[in-house]
Amino acid sequence: MLKLHQITLRDEVFVSDREVVRSIVERTGFFRPDEVGIAVELVDERLSRGATSGYHFVFVEVGNAVAGYACYGPIACTSASYDLYWIAVDPRFQRQGIGRLLNEAVESRVAAGGGERIYVDTSGRPQYAPTRAFYEHGGFRCEARLADFYAAGDDRMIYVKAVGR
Amino acid sequence: MLKLHQITLRDEVFVSDREVVRSIVERTGFFRPDEVGIAVELVDERLSRGATSGYHFVFVEVGNAVAGYACYGPIACTSASYDLYWIAVDPRFQRQGIGRLLNEAVESRVAAGGGERIYVDTSGRPQYAPTRAFYEHGGFRCEARLADFYAAGDDRMIYVKAVGR
Repeated sequence: MLKLHQITLRDEVFVSDREVVRSIVERTGFFRPDEVGIAVELVDERLSRGATSGYHFVFVEVGNAVAGYACYGPIACTSASYDLYWIAVDPRFQRQGIGRLLNEAVESRVAAGGGERIYVDTSGRPQYAPTRAFYEHGGFRCEARLADFYAAGDDRMIYVKAVGR
Repeated sequence: MLKLHQITLRDEVFVSDREVVRSIVERTGFFRPDEVGIAVELVDERLSRGATSGYHFVFVEVGNAVAGYACYGPIACTSASYDLYWIAVDPRFQRQGIGRLLNEAVESRVAAGGGERIYVDTSGRPQYAPTRAFYEHGGFRCEARLADFYAAGDDRMIYVKAVGR
């Protein structure tokens, strides 16, 4: 485990985070090129429109390196529901509790903002079993499954966690 | 019922549709101001970014008037899933089959574009019973229900229809 004094949480988003996010998301080896593009687009939206973009970020820094990040935000037309859009940990920093730290950081920020629920989507395919386990260990439960949503045989699993209670 | 020769379907979006959409959505009496704003934002996105916005429209014109419209589009990171974002009929033209016509127009366009499924969301609240009945009569079935998604006691109902089969 990392020593706590090495770790910093950062909410401010810098232009340099475009490449930070691209690099982390690419190097996980877990996302298709179009998905990597969308991850970077969320940073662009945040940089150009600020908090009104609806995209909030939290970065975990270990020393001078960004070890991982999460992107979340309130869902339009809801009173207290948030989406966790993205969570990714640099492969060099995986298995060190960074994902759990990000999950907890998002939850505390959502609660502080008056949010009551966090939703996160993932795939029902076998290779996403570790992702689903990560969310389940982080307090999420699967509330719905949409068959063939992503593609034939690739279901969308909608997880939810109640916060601030 | 309207005579068929009075009815035209239009896919092109004009700047004037900003006010057309605002007027129709407002006068249904069914949407909150923030929801009306989002309906107009979708038109803006389409006008500024074209088809790459991902927002497609179909308008039903009766003579020189727009009687109703639908907004739909492909869902990012899916192979063949579409969202029906909005469907609204001018109160002056309701109960004349315009909603059904829009529903069928969206379905044929999605099928022609290679889409296999259309999703539409609505609320589980009692006052949305006519909306749910409209979708159910239009071939949608409720695949998932997310408790308290919109607000406490206001569930999100996710409907889906298979197309192009």
